[in-house]
Amino acid sequence: MAAFPQLRKDPIVDRWVLIAPERATRPMELVVAAPARDGPSCPFCEGEESRTPHEVFAIRPNGSRPDTPGWQVRVVANMFPAARRDAATPANGIAEAGYGAHEVVIESPQHEAVFSALPRDRIEQVFEVFRRRLEFLAADPRLQYVQVFKNHGLAAGASVEHVHSQILGVSRVPREVAAELHGAAEHHARFGRCAFCDLIEREIAAKERIVAIGEHMVAFTAYAGRFPYETWFLPRRHGCRYESATATEIAENAAIVRRVLGRLDELIPGVGYNLVLHTAPLHDSRRADFHWHWELLPRTTGIAGFELSTGCFLNPLPPEQAAAQLRGEVA
Amino acid sequence: MAAFPQLRKDPIVDRWVLIAPERATRPMELVVAAPARDGPSCPFCEGEESRTPHEVFAIRPNGSRPDTPGWQVRVVANMFPAARRDAATPANGIAEAGYGAHEVVIESPQHEAVFSALPRDRIEQVFEVFRRRLEFLAADPRLQYVQVFKNHGLAAGASVEHVHSQILGVSRVPREVAAELHGAAEHHARFGRCAFCDLIEREIAAKERIVAIGEHMVAFTAYAGRFPYETWFLPRRHGCRYESATATEIAENAAIVRRVLGRLDELIPGVGYNLVLHTAPLHDSRRADFHWHWELLPRTTGIAGFELSTGCFLNPLPPEQAAAQLRGEVA
Repeated sequence: MAAFPQLRKDPIVDRWVLIAPERATRPMELVVAAPARDGPSCPFCEGEESRTPHEVFAIRPNGSRPDTPGWQVRVVANMFPAARRDAATPANGIAEAGYGAHEVVIESPQHEAVFSALPRDRIEQVFEVFRRRLEFLAADPRLQYVQVFKNHGLAAGASVEHVHSQILGVSRVPREVAAELHGAAEHHARFGRCAFCDLIEREIAAKERIVAIGEHMVAFTAYAGRFPYETWFLPRRHGCRYESATATEIAENAAIVRRVLGRLDELIPGVGYNLVLHTAPLHDSRRADFHWHWELLPRTTGIAGFELSTGCFLNPLPPEQAAAQLRGEVA
Repeated sequence: MAAFPQLRKDPIVDRWVLIAPERATRPMELVVAAPARDGPSCPFCEGEESRTPHEVFAIRPNGSRPDTPGWQVRVVANMFPAARRDAATPANGIAEAGYGAHEVVIESPQHEAVFSALPRDRIEQVFEVFRRRLEFLAADPRLQYVQVFKNHGLAAGASVEHVHSQILGVSRVPREVAAELHGAAEHHARFGRCAFCDLIEREIAAKERIVAIGEHMVAFTAYAGRFPYETWFLPRRHGCRYESATATEIAENAAIVRRVLGRLDELIPGVGYNLVLHTAPLHDSRRADFHWHWELLPRTTGIAGFELSTGCFLNPLPPEQAAAQLRGEVA
């Protein structure tokens, strides 16, 4: 019997899947339920530290001890890890150990369900914690890629209400990341410039998809957005790895993401979304042609059979209209 | 202003999106609601034919007139098409007309919400109607690929309760289809055999993922399934295009799909799913190395930020356990 978690390759397509059975036992438990309004008994709240796995990092301004109150942001191992550092299935070309690190970033000591409702300096802190965890995980030579992601709302795959994100470092560069790196490398080979730097220039000139322009960051709706209101947040200064983000870039990114999330929630109260980081692989110094950025993927519509089977998404809202609405021009 | 629907390519990745704004107007209308229990006022029910677009095909055993009662399966144009035959945006490399055909297959004249609850001969009829529509659409030289798909339940993207499927023919071979064709072609080039024929042989020998073996069809859980209970249904006889399916293959496929859907619903009552056809592109005779099949994608878990950003799915149920449960060995 194979040890889990396990990474398996599809027999036809170059598509790997993480089989991670710790997350379920009986059939009905496979169904992800709506995030519980778990206020008083929430294991992510301050004072409940003993109910989570041990913390691996925390912001503790007054120097309190790990796994006790007194923190502002707290990072713990995921209780149901999709990948583990003690995973040890030998690789055989179509299956290998689900080696990796799976962490949860608890973004507030108080029970809060809405990320954009946190004060701006706390959101800034969260984006800085992501940067520090990437720096830390980059020291592990077996990790190839670290995905930072936030799931908000049931439609976006969230099962816990208290504001949090996840960090999942894996031993292979995943296929969508590889596809983006490939596209960026092709552009660089052809034009001698970063595809994202060129895109920023074009979008600022075109104006119609711009959501916000700051001194250091720019946000626009994706030209070929998969989801209504899909918005990308990019640093104007070229940089392939999020670890290299400066304090001013992180501060401005936090402010703009917070504002856009707030505006999105005005347009569609309670809407679910995913917020995902795109950054270069950890040990791939060839990728100076990449450009880190965040992608906001609002989840108003389900992902249906057409999208899953073809990889082609149906988006019912033209990105130009989405940008106008996010800028506040249209109710 | 661009004409819609429009196919757009992402500026970095080779990923096309259909922007189809007919489906929505105000922000809140973008949220897909749970399928209404719309029994008495359902436009898909017999007697309500005037409430749908005109029918393009129907099974009418007694020869009744189009758009009147007396049908068993009825195919109409989609009221909110994601692609249209009168689309006419000129192609410019990153955008082109969302040219295509978008049809709805209404699978029962009576109001029924559960596909596997239909009688076996009716399900057989539905699978034959798909085959006939593919034959018909193949005559359009501008269509490159036709995706047949069923969405059941809100989690799977369905917004109508009455049993139905959709057919969406598009002017490009979509990226996931291309990836599968590529994988199958590589296998064929290397081993001189169809990758799926080899897979069928291996799975029958390995036994552990087999769900059903018939004379003409075989069903097994996918080795690297993206979803719990993900099951593939393949004809044992090699054939790249679903149009070439024989009556006996279609009859046995209908019986096995019906049984597996029924068993899945016993395990997880009311679970949503997508059922999608994989078949070779319409005008690509080079693809004799492909092998048509159906994929059942149960939707117990949301598709979250990790999956969307990386393309790597997390599956909490080992496919071997899923197969045992679908065979009825384990409760």
